[in-house]
Amino acid sequence: MSLIVQKYGGTSVGDLARIRHVAERVARYRDQGHQVVVVVSAMSGETNRLDALGKELVSRPDSREMDVLLAAGEQVSIALLSMALIARGVPARSFLGFQVPVRTDDAFGRARIEEIDTQSLMAAVREGIVPVIAGFQGVASDDSVTTLGRGGSDTSAVAVAAALKADECEICTDVDGVYTADPRVEPRARRLDTITFEEMLELASLGSKVLHPRSVEFAGKYQVPLRVLSTFVEAGGTLITMESETMEQPLVSGIAHTRDEAKLTISGVPDVPGVASRILGPVSAANIEVDMIVQNTGADGLTDFTFTVKRSDFDKARELLAPVQSSLKARSLSGDDGIAKVSVVGVGMRSHAGVATRVFDALARENINILMISTSEIKISVVIAERYMELAVRTLHSEFGLEQAVPA
Amino acid sequence: MSLIVQKYGGTSVGDLARIRHVAERVARYRDQGHQVVVVVSAMSGETNRLDALGKELVSRPDSREMDVLLAAGEQVSIALLSMALIARGVPARSFLGFQVPVRTDDAFGRARIEEIDTQSLMAAVREGIVPVIAGFQGVASDDSVTTLGRGGSDTSAVAVAAALKADECEICTDVDGVYTADPRVEPRARRLDTITFEEMLELASLGSKVLHPRSVEFAGKYQVPLRVLSTFVEAGGTLITMESETMEQPLVSGIAHTRDEAKLTISGVPDVPGVASRILGPVSAANIEVDMIVQNTGADGLTDFTFTVKRSDFDKARELLAPVQSSLKARSLSGDDGIAKVSVVGVGMRSHAGVATRVFDALARENINILMISTSEIKISVVIAERYMELAVRTLHSEFGLEQAVPA
Repeated sequence: MSLIVQKYGGTSVGDLARIRHVAERVARYRDQGHQVVVVVSAMSGETNRLDALGKELVSRPDSREMDVLLAAGEQVSIALLSMALIARGVPARSFLGFQVPVRTDDAFGRARIEEIDTQSLMAAVREGIVPVIAGFQGVASDDSVTTLGRGGSDTSAVAVAAALKADECEICTDVDGVYTADPRVEPRARRLDTITFEEMLELASLGSKVLHPRSVEFAGKYQVPLRVLSTFVEAGGTLITMESETMEQPLVSGIAHTRDEAKLTISGVPDVPGVASRILGPVSAANIEVDMIVQNTGADGLTDFTFTVKRSDFDKARELLAPVQSSLKARSLSGDDGIAKVSVVGVGMRSHAGVATRVFDALARENINILMISTSEIKISVVIAERYMELAVRTLHSEFGLEQAVPA
Repeated sequence: MSLIVQKYGGTSVGDLARIRHVAERVARYRDQGHQVVVVVSAMSGETNRLDALGKELVSRPDSREMDVLLAAGEQVSIALLSMALIARGVPARSFLGFQVPVRTDDAFGRARIEEIDTQSLMAAVREGIVPVIAGFQGVASDDSVTTLGRGGSDTSAVAVAAALKADECEICTDVDGVYTADPRVEPRARRLDTITFEEMLELASLGSKVLHPRSVEFAGKYQVPLRVLSTFVEAGGTLITMESETMEQPLVSGIAHTRDEAKLTISGVPDVPGVASRILGPVSAANIEVDMIVQNTGADGLTDFTFTVKRSDFDKARELLAPVQSSLKARSLSGDDGIAKVSVVGVGMRSHAGVATRVFDALARENINILMISTSEIKISVVIAERYMELAVRTLHSEFGLEQAVPA
């Protein structure tokens, strides 16, 4: 008998039929002798609806009240799922953030979990009751309702699993696991049976929108075995594991990509200290997220400074940079909003040189020009023209033999 | 400076424009130097939507979880109103049931308020913050969310006003007060400046759907000055007061009516003890509400037993009575679902005989046949054919001179 925490996302509880299906799925695990604790998101679209309602009412909604508003979404879904379980003959009980309680700091809209009291949850589990916990929400020390930010339900689930010392935390979603690449881009992409936390982190933050990065970080820190699997299809999913020294690691685990990138370059800037912050200062002050940053200094002592932003932030960033260009007396300001980023991720590349060379060679063979490069210990990212993105993903997927199952 | 509790119903916060209007209204009271505490219902239609969602999911939803579901409606409206107030420059803070806390028993769906802790509310008021409290909801001793049943927000408001010893509890709604009759039936109906709690109770339970009877009872018990007035129109509304011995009471305060009534008669029943309970037992066991009951015994020792139910319960009640009729060997079972009830209400009739006679005479002059009569200390109700209802209301309104303002 294991204690399993199952998290169901918005799509999994998106309508009444799906809620009934989730109740069936929970019942099946329970019939197999497992103890199940459930964490639920709001029904799909509901958080967006409430968010839009608040922002339509006033231009800058109070952050405390915004959390009260948004938390109503999960309140509805836990009540419905509990009802469905009880009607199905499975004793269940909903838990709002304050009822667990899930203690957080008071950073509304992006609260961090500080402590999860397990007493009431474990009392329910011991009585054979399935606790159905509202994800995404918690309660501050003054009893204010807080929310953890987008994707926060994943973090809730992992935190509950860590606090309960659960045997596994299942993230039940609309995909059946983590793939070596996006199957819509590379049809030969293969589902991974396992992946390490570090790889998952790189994949998640690079745009494989399976798991919220914070939840992966949290799971790694507290060593919670985490599994991504489908609510709707019976399959093993992908287990996210600690890196084992004895385990043979594949060189590369997957190829991630993000469209919707844009880059901005200020050329011919005098290379003096403080230039980077004068360029990026106004951009980050406007809450524009900067991803890759590259700086090259030529023989003339002038430097070219390039960085990438989300495409939706491109025009605004460009406007902000115009006065910076003139005040720095830089030669030119240019931009490109037709780019994409492709990344090769794998813990195996730590101990193997030559992965970067293989990436560059493979892309060169297809005449794909690399605009920017950024590397970390377990990842190599290149920025290329967006029109080459699919070709680059398939080329690299094939280069590292990802379509073949790893030998056992 | 007074401390005023204002309750806004679902129509008053039915859309974002109305929520902004309510924020303006609260701000105006505050600018006049009053301390304001607000109690809010769910946006109109929202409680019904959530209720339908739960009942579509499972045929008999768990009552604890139903309360979790329904309570989400008020959570949305308090967050929105607080945001609107803050954006308007009025410091405000939403309070869910558990945050006040509003302590109730654990009778889900029809919980009773046991205690309201005023500490956090008064702390907010002292800091100049407007507390915006979720009506309709509370929290049981085990921290379960509870709801007070339909119309419960009125009760919440009165209970909060009683606990805070507020100077007045305003029920802000879509009508501007209590009228001597329904203005849609009697255009000459006049808004009452004052009415006693007892009269209000009779009028509310007779179908003047202005205030929930429980809230009126509560206000009477704790002597909370209660005022019904419009959220949208500036006017004094109707103040509900204690009966004063020195105050000259009008003979009759108003004429109430209910359509949608039906009556059932079992004739020729042997008049032996226990007959009434054998007839009404199955009806009340089926949760059908019985209103008026009349029994006449003739010279032959046989009795006729008549009672009224809501029209929507008529067919079901009739079915339930068929086996009762045969087991009692009663002569016949008949029914009429085309009736209405008209009631004359006034504390003044306590000390004046002859009101009943005037009612019967006035109706007789219009050839309106009375089918049933029921009286209490401050009310006389008659059941008539539904088609005479409007005529009966206008006749009685005029008979007691209600179109004329009471001399000061």
